[in-house]
Amino acid sequence: MLNILFSAKPAAWDEYQAPLNAAFAEAGLSVNLAREHAPQDVDYIIFTPNGPVTDFRPYTKTKAVMGLWAGVESIVDNETLTQPLCRLVDESLTAGMVEWVTGHTLRHHLGMDLHILHQDGVWRDDSFPPVAAKRPVTILGIGALGAACGQALTALGFPVTGWSRNPKNITGIRCLHGDDGLHEALTDAQIVILLLPQTPDTANILNADTLALMAKGSFVINPGRGPLIDDDALLAALDEGQIAHATLDVFRIEPLPEDHAFWAHPQVTVTPHIASTTRPETAAKVIVDNIVRGESGLPFRYLVDRARGY
Amino acid sequence: MLNILFSAKPAAWDEYQAPLNAAFAEAGLSVNLAREHAPQDVDYIIFTPNGPVTDFRPYTKTKAVMGLWAGVESIVDNETLTQPLCRLVDESLTAGMVEWVTGHTLRHHLGMDLHILHQDGVWRDDSFPPVAAKRPVTILGIGALGAACGQALTALGFPVTGWSRNPKNITGIRCLHGDDGLHEALTDAQIVILLLPQTPDTANILNADTLALMAKGSFVINPGRGPLIDDDALLAALDEGQIAHATLDVFRIEPLPEDHAFWAHPQVTVTPHIASTTRPETAAKVIVDNIVRGESGLPFRYLVDRARGY
Ligand SMILES: NC(=O)c1ccc[n+]([C@@H]2O[C@H](COP(=O)([O-])OP(=O)(O)OC[C@H]3O[C@@H](n4cnc5c(N)ncnc54)[C@H](OP(=O)(O)O)[C@@H]3O)[C@@H](O)[C@H]2O)c1
Ligand SMILES: NC(=O)c1ccc[n+]([C@@H]2O[C@H](COP(=O)([O-])OP(=O)(O)OC[C@H]3O[C@@H](n4cnc5c(N)ncnc54)[C@H](OP(=O)(O)O)[C@@H]3O)[C@@H](O)[C@H]2O)c1
Repeated sequence: MLNILFSAKPAAWDEYQAPLNAAFAEAGLSVNLAREHAPQDVDYIIFTPNGPVTDFRPYTKTKAVMGLWAGVESIVDNETLTQPLCRLVDESLTAGMVEWVTGHTLRHHLGMDLHILHQDGVWRDDSFPPVAAKRPVTILGIGALGAACGQALTALGFPVTGWSRNPKNITGIRCLHGDDGLHEALTDAQIVILLLPQTPDTANILNADTLALMAKGSFVINPGRGPLIDDDALLAALDEGQIAHATLDVFRIEPLPEDHAFWAHPQVTVTPHIASTTRPETAAKVIVDNIVRGESGLPFRYLVDRARGY
Repeated sequence: MLNILFSAKPAAWDEYQAPLNAAFAEAGLSVNLAREHAPQDVDYIIFTPNGPVTDFRPYTKTKAVMGLWAGVESIVDNETLTQPLCRLVDESLTAGMVEWVTGHTLRHHLGMDLHILHQDGVWRDDSFPPVAAKRPVTILGIGALGAACGQALTALGFPVTGWSRNPKNITGIRCLHGDDGLHEALTDAQIVILLLPQTPDTANILNADTLALMAKGSFVINPGRGPLIDDDALLAALDEGQIAHATLDVFRIEPLPEDHAFWAHPQVTVTPHIASTTRPETAAKVIVDNIVRGESGLPFRYLVDRARGY
């Protein structure tokens, strides 16, 4: 009998309790899944950063902490956490991100807002977008989410460049890495999508210098994390016409304060951190599979590298 | 030396002249491409319905009329036309339609307009769309354009049903046909896309009865032709909430008159017949290939069946 502690907000418990118990039963694991356990008895913690557990030291026999979120920036620095930490990689989370990124890429590519925002009786049929093949898209961060988005965009005909820390080889995507790679990846890009994790290395990666590399009148889409962008530099680039429009899902402060310049800017679309979400049915299976691996002596999947921060 | 008559608006001549001559040269065909020829000398006519030729009787040795448009409803009834008529099937036209249909399908699926239209400082993060796998899409008309759109949507995870006149077999798409097939295809569909040609059989195919089959609160996307929809029935279905939103690219009268109810309706998005356009570079190659076929004694591709009307 494994003791599994669920440490998240009460609403998450309501959503996850049944799917997790079903997935444990299906896997043949006998568990006691609860929101309270004596710390020294806990085998695994299922975790979100906004739940009750913040000090991991009393969890002396805990074999791993299984995050329910894809981003780990708010836990990776926690010095009391010495147990292995796994982030969530979930097919539904990935599918949702592919839908959101593909949808907003097509929205900007096609210039949909012209019609959505101006239903005024004027027949504006004088301009057509280039075909996707002539619209270079660059994705900064081609991990689980970025690579899936890149492949969906490639299938639609966009020429896709991806950028990562380590060299990669992904069918159909021009893969670049490191500092030189960043310069090349951004040069003349018409749509830039941010799917990097938030780490000290990625902070302000889109700044006055890097925004200037992009094509004049290009688009920024940020479903990654708020601190990836220097907000003031982006606002200046929008005002100068260097960037035509930015669609931003994530912000330094969330909810984005009502008086933030992004809300009022006509060339910014704010979405409320909804690009993708974990779905309890699929996420529960991923977490239970990973616990089964641990119990079988196999290495955990999706382990966070605490030193590099993601 | 073949005499090729180009009968379209002057602006089309400016766009097409160079690509057509380049494609003829590349194919090794010696031609005289011009906007005027003695009718009895013309071998082929490259044609749009809004150009000068309306009476085809003097074109006694013309071997085929090559349309520059995908839709042929405004020529198919012309009784003076006894020569073979080919419509345009062009990879760029198809690619553009796939982009437009995929973009607007994702827009409605994700509920983008909520954010695009309300940049008012309110953080509306309380609802997530289902994953695409739970959003059934139906495409009426799975010919050149509909099948390509269906495959793009399938790749994104949508369950796609297609409907045609004849039985079909297309990987990943549930194919239905005929009257019973229509009933089944529309029942519980959440997004319906119209890619049928305009013929007597397809007029008003979306009407009060067929709209009522769709799921409550569903979406209509029409890049096909205006007469496919009974406008009053659609407006009533929108007002009742049976249809949540309609995005319409084509209309009975184009440009859509400024005082038409569609412009003013908050749940209708009018786009000005821009879903897709023929691109001279690719279209020129398709037309020249087809003329080469004719000159080699091969059957023409993309022949219009005058009796069925498309
Ligand atoms: N808005 C939302 O709803 C939402 C939902 C889920 C996730 N997210 C965000 O999406 C991010 C990405 O998620 P994921 O699952 O795709 O993460 P992942 O699989 O860890 O991929 C991260 C990618 O970023 C690259 N990277 C990290 N640091 C870098 C650096 N300093 N220089 C260059 N490349 C660097 C990685 O390169 P290597 O491959 O070389 O390691 C990898 O390609 C998450 O961290 C989270 O912030 C947002
Ligand atoms: N908005 C724009 O910018 C734009 C641009 C290009 C085209 N279009 C429109 O898109 C339409 C479709 O183009 P396409 O190239 O895909 O045409 P297509 O290849 O001829 O396909 C037409 C499809 O409609 C089906 N169909 C026709 N009559 C039917 C009926 N009575 N019952 C059931 N199915 C029927 C056909 O069935 P079968 O396969 O059984 O024959 C076929 O699947 C064009 O006619 C044009 O109106 C619009």
